[in-house]
Amino acid sequence: MAAEARAEQTPVAIVMGSQSDWATMRHAAETLAALGVGHEARIVSAHRTPDRLVAFAKSAKADGFKVVIAGAGGAAHLPGMVAAMTPLPVFGVPVQSHTLSGLDSLLSIVQMPGGVPVGTLAIGKAGAINAALIAASVLALSDEPLAERLDAWRATQTGGVAETPVSEG
Amino acid sequence: MAAEARAEQTPVAIVMGSQSDWATMRHAAETLAALGVGHEARIVSAHRTPDRLVAFAKSAKADGFKVVIAGAGGAAHLPGMVAAMTPLPVFGVPVQSHTLSGLDSLLSIVQMPGGVPVGTLAIGKAGAINAALIAASVLALSDEPLAERLDAWRATQTGGVAETPVSEG
Amino acid sequence: MAAEARAEQTPVAIVMGSQSDWATMRHAAETLAALGVGHEARIVSAHRTPDRLVAFAKSAKADGFKVVIAGAGGAAHLPGMVAAMTPLPVFGVPVQSHTLSGLDSLLSIVQMPGGVPVGTLAIGKAGAINAALIAASVLALSDEPLAERLDAWRATQTGGVAETPVSEG
Amino acid sequence: MAAEARAEQTPVAIVMGSQSDWATMRHAAETLAALGVGHEARIVSAHRTPDRLVAFAKSAKADGFKVVIAGAGGAAHLPGMVAAMTPLPVFGVPVQSHTLSGLDSLLSIVQMPGGVPVGTLAIGKAGAINAALIAASVLALSDEPLAERLDAWRATQTGGVAETPVSEG
Amino acid sequence: MAAEARAEQTPVAIVMGSQSDWATMRHAAETLAALGVGHEARIVSAHRTPDRLVAFAKSAKADGFKVVIAGAGGAAHLPGMVAAMTPLPVFGVPVQSHTLSGLDSLLSIVQMPGGVPVGTLAIGKAGAINAALIAASVLALSDEPLAERLDAWRATQTGGVAETPVSEG
Amino acid sequence: MAAEARAEQTPVAIVMGSQSDWATMRHAAETLAALGVGHEARIVSAHRTPDRLVAFAKSAKADGFKVVIAGAGGAAHLPGMVAAMTPLPVFGVPVQSHTLSGLDSLLSIVQMPGGVPVGTLAIGKAGAINAALIAASVLALSDEPLAERLDAWRATQTGGVAETPVSEG
Amino acid sequence: MAAEARAEQTPVAIVMGSQSDWATMRHAAETLAALGVGHEARIVSAHRTPDRLVAFAKSAKADGFKVVIAGAGGAAHLPGMVAAMTPLPVFGVPVQSHTLSGLDSLLSIVQMPGGVPVGTLAIGKAGAINAALIAASVLALSDEPLAERLDAWRATQTGGVAETPVSEG
Amino acid sequence: MAAEARAEQTPVAIVMGSQSDWATMRHAAETLAALGVGHEARIVSAHRTPDRLVAFAKSAKADGFKVVIAGAGGAAHLPGMVAAMTPLPVFGVPVQSHTLSGLDSLLSIVQMPGGVPVGTLAIGKAGAINAALIAASVLALSDEPLAERLDAWRATQTGGVAETPVSEG
Repeated sequence: MAAEARAEQTPVAIVMGSQSDWATMRHAAETLAALGVGHEARIVSAHRTPDRLVAFAKSAKADGFKVVIAGAGGAAHLPGMVAAMTPLPVFGVPVQSHTLSGLDSLLSIVQMPGGVPVGTLAIGKAGAINAALIAASVLALSDEPLAERLDAWRATQTGGVAETPVSEG
Repeated sequence: MAAEARAEQTPVAIVMGSQSDWATMRHAAETLAALGVGHEARIVSAHRTPDRLVAFAKSAKADGFKVVIAGAGGAAHLPGMVAAMTPLPVFGVPVQSHTLSGLDSLLSIVQMPGGVPVGTLAIGKAGAINAALIAASVLALSDEPLAERLDAWRATQTGGVAETPVSEG
Repeated sequence: MAAEARAEQTPVAIVMGSQSDWATMRHAAETLAALGVGHEARIVSAHRTPDRLVAFAKSAKADGFKVVIAGAGGAAHLPGMVAAMTPLPVFGVPVQSHTLSGLDSLLSIVQMPGGVPVGTLAIGKAGAINAALIAASVLALSDEPLAERLDAWRATQTGGVAETPVSEG
Repeated sequence: MAAEARAEQTPVAIVMGSQSDWATMRHAAETLAALGVGHEARIVSAHRTPDRLVAFAKSAKADGFKVVIAGAGGAAHLPGMVAAMTPLPVFGVPVQSHTLSGLDSLLSIVQMPGGVPVGTLAIGKAGAINAALIAASVLALSDEPLAERLDAWRATQTGGVAETPVSEG
Repeated sequence: MAAEARAEQTPVAIVMGSQSDWATMRHAAETLAALGVGHEARIVSAHRTPDRLVAFAKSAKADGFKVVIAGAGGAAHLPGMVAAMTPLPVFGVPVQSHTLSGLDSLLSIVQMPGGVPVGTLAIGKAGAINAALIAASVLALSDEPLAERLDAWRATQTGGVAETPVSEG
Repeated sequence: MAAEARAEQTPVAIVMGSQSDWATMRHAAETLAALGVGHEARIVSAHRTPDRLVAFAKSAKADGFKVVIAGAGGAAHLPGMVAAMTPLPVFGVPVQSHTLSGLDSLLSIVQMPGGVPVGTLAIGKAGAINAALIAASVLALSDEPLAERLDAWRATQTGGVAETPVSEG
Repeated sequence: MAAEARAEQTPVAIVMGSQSDWATMRHAAETLAALGVGHEARIVSAHRTPDRLVAFAKSAKADGFKVVIAGAGGAAHLPGMVAAMTPLPVFGVPVQSHTLSGLDSLLSIVQMPGGVPVGTLAIGKAGAINAALIAASVLALSDEPLAERLDAWRATQTGGVAETPVSEG
Repeated sequence: MAAEARAEQTPVAIVMGSQSDWATMRHAAETLAALGVGHEARIVSAHRTPDRLVAFAKSAKADGFKVVIAGAGGAAHLPGMVAAMTPLPVFGVPVQSHTLSGLDSLLSIVQMPGGVPVGTLAIGKAGAINAALIAASVLALSDEPLAERLDAWRATQTGGVAETPVSEG
């Protein structure tokens, strides 16, 4: 796809360290789809495919992406390494790990040194949804129709909160 | 200031829970200044000035801000509560706390439920610097001169890394 | 309901961040019911329904409530934000979270800054039961029959502890 | 002092595990004093003076106290053991420990089993101040002048938050 | 049973905070039985039966016990409170808690202040077995036949470790 | 086996604290097998078979081993004690523990004092695989065919990473 | 010294991993001295002097010791390895570490597998004092004069707790 | 320097993320120097100089290095990213971080996914020393004089442990 076309149609790249992260990261894709934000999902392993990482990160802007969402678990280096090689805003999703419940993923992503930021979301599914929402809010700054769709999405969310809890069977 | 004027001149609001957070948050202000990004710093305590919080968050977009940076420590509710009341992207800085080194601040900010995102940066000074940088990268998506200044800033940062360590003292 | 009538009949408000918290918070309701303490359970999401939060918290006292029990999980802001907007005593219940077992919920609720207190109970079901019991002990200070019911409840609890353990099935 | 007289004049008992806790717990005493709430501070070590603990806790209500504030550090058993032996509301303050920064104190106090509640505040000075404030809010339920003093205290606190941060020398 | 008779026949008391702790603590009983060490298991809740706690701890030595094993979970106060009221050696077993995996139990038991010791074992079943073994090693100091049984038990344990692992299933 | 023969055929010893660790450690064995690196797996419990530990560690080099992989859980002393008694490089695998998810295993292995190193890998299966890989990389320094097999293994790993995630049923 | 003579005069061995642990462990020695319990302090590094470890642990009983107190920090293997090689009761003191405040020391000592117990005390100075006290309580089981000295020590401790806190400085 | 010459003279590369890491990493250099192992220290920031990282890691083997020691703090990605791009054994040193004491550094380095190993040492100075020692033990496998120097170093270390502690100051 030409970069210009993509900028219109696919402003968000969703990258993840492995196929197993997709169970978490698909919630980012689904949320973007619900908001009408184009996106592309790829597997880019910082550790197993470092060349793919460099190629992706260095060309992400030229390829027309505007925002990158990166999810990884354990010693999660993908979000920070992408952020090291692109001027685009990068949002990180700590995938819940088997052994330490994602605390390792969280600290590996959020504790970046001054100079290279990763905007980090919550561990797991909530974080994947929220990465999509903050990416949309960034794009909405210069896309009024998206801003309206996002407002509508938030209003629906607010409206969907029942007044009282109900016991479940 | 009129909202339109501000949008041009002061796109970033920096809010913090108390005067004591300024020692950390001034690094966000200084980094934005170095990048030529207008900003305004205010104290907005979620707990001690909840009305000010509501007023600030609900009018932030209408007031012309485009991005909010919020820093707080301990049971740090400011970033999340701002995010609950504005469609703007919100970046959170966990201020290092006395007792638990900012782990409480970090978890209070980053573990937001699906639906209301806060892009969270590292604990302390590094996080404050990075909140400014990610805010700048967001604004740079539609501000080419800023994108160039940000690229230059990053290039300077890269160029400033010495090849070999030197012993001190 | 008129505030005066409620003060007699429904002195305790139980609020929670979402329907899913009810599995925990219903133990507070059931304990209050066992003690003959009137209560009302509502869903008030700090993040998804901030206006409802403000409306609830600001009018809680005028509406005749005397004590608020608030439960939430993850970046749990509900108890602290209610406490910021009501002079009533607020008791917080950290709901066990998926990823970090409620440690995030606990720190988000208990580590309030000096000036705005939340009396925090244990993570999960035990905390919900205990929020009801401490609320009852507060009300019992000026309600002698309740004090007697609470004493009886505690005596029954003490009497129900077997002398020796028995092996099970 | 006769119990009736104390109920009027000294409704709050502040107990702590050792002299060294006073550096923290005096902030509870000072806050109560600022609010015009009578109180008495005692050292009651659960471990070194268990008889004193039993005597204090069992007679606290008969002695005219209405609320107990208990502070301790490390394996902090004082708040929970007092709560086991009095029907009065007990508020716990985790004193910051040398080795684990008060995380041990916090968990030892807050994680009470269902049946015996301790309303737990933040670790350290903030928690001591807040124990006083929540005790005052409990007493204010049946003491209108105190309710007014507490409202005034909170208003002063709100009014004292500056609009903008200032750099310090 | 007369104290003297017990000292011969039942030197170890196993106390636990609730029936649910028996699933863990029965491993202490079974290990003592395997070593031919008399013991008695009781439920003594520090929080729900404080009088029973005081009665047990204060008379444990006079009742002929020589060692106390105490198990509890969460804000686990039983071992430390027993240790506060008996000169006998007390060994504590942190029962694994639902929410924090026994880290709360461990810190509540092990972090005793200088002056009142609890010899703490591992969280859960391993700790219960080991409490029995260390109790036996204490008793074996003045009971040569027990010392021989303990040596035999250890030799059997050593001998039971296979040289090479085998695949299962 | 003679030491010289072993050095050719079985350069890696895999030791573990108990049969139950084999579920984790067999991944080290399988990875070495895939790389054509000879190895021998043994159970050596630091705590239950200390003589076997001493015998193994002291003779490991003379027996012809070149690298030791040691896995253990909980208070995991095996890797460090082997390292104390052999000049060979020792790699440690923290086996995931029941109660603390392997955080105890990790800290017990990695936090060795200056003077006696253990190269520590990740908790659980990933760590066992990686212990095999780093052992192979050490041996490959003087074994060109192995270096080529390792390169091929890594290339296969890289090639096996799909470009895009696929949803699973 | 002959073993029999030592059993009378020096029943407690205090071992520690390095000279730097003495700042903590001397509190064990001083407490034993105050109680009139003979003891000997030695440096035995599990990692740097494994032969000394084996020699000490294997002969501790034959040398006339009755109880071993072992202190170490970081990946603290000394207490557990001594316990693996002696039938005597072993008490462990986690020395506070530079980086992780002794949490690593604590978990490395307390989380022993079922079969080899270490009675673990608190991190740091409090733990060293308490190791001495529990050792004394063990010896007092068959040493009535020591039991009386220990009772007196405890009574003095209880008597030394002031009734009310005093402000300092 | 030609690769072949380096392989003889400078087999170890020490890389670190920033000048500030040198205070820790110089202990690796000094230990290697004491052992007569050639080494070269460089600053290679994964985040600020990603091109330098790629260039270094991809050519490390061809440049004649045999082992890489990599130290970094916070979200420490350097060791893992080097390991992703070189077949050489990589040893990681978690530098102690300001806010979380190096727990973030440790988890970011050690929790690598299966397939790309980093042999991780202790947090801080001890880890830097040990990285040098394990690197030396690797090189000693095919360098008998170095093996002898390492044995001598270890013997000196063992011999330097005093038998008894001495009071200081």
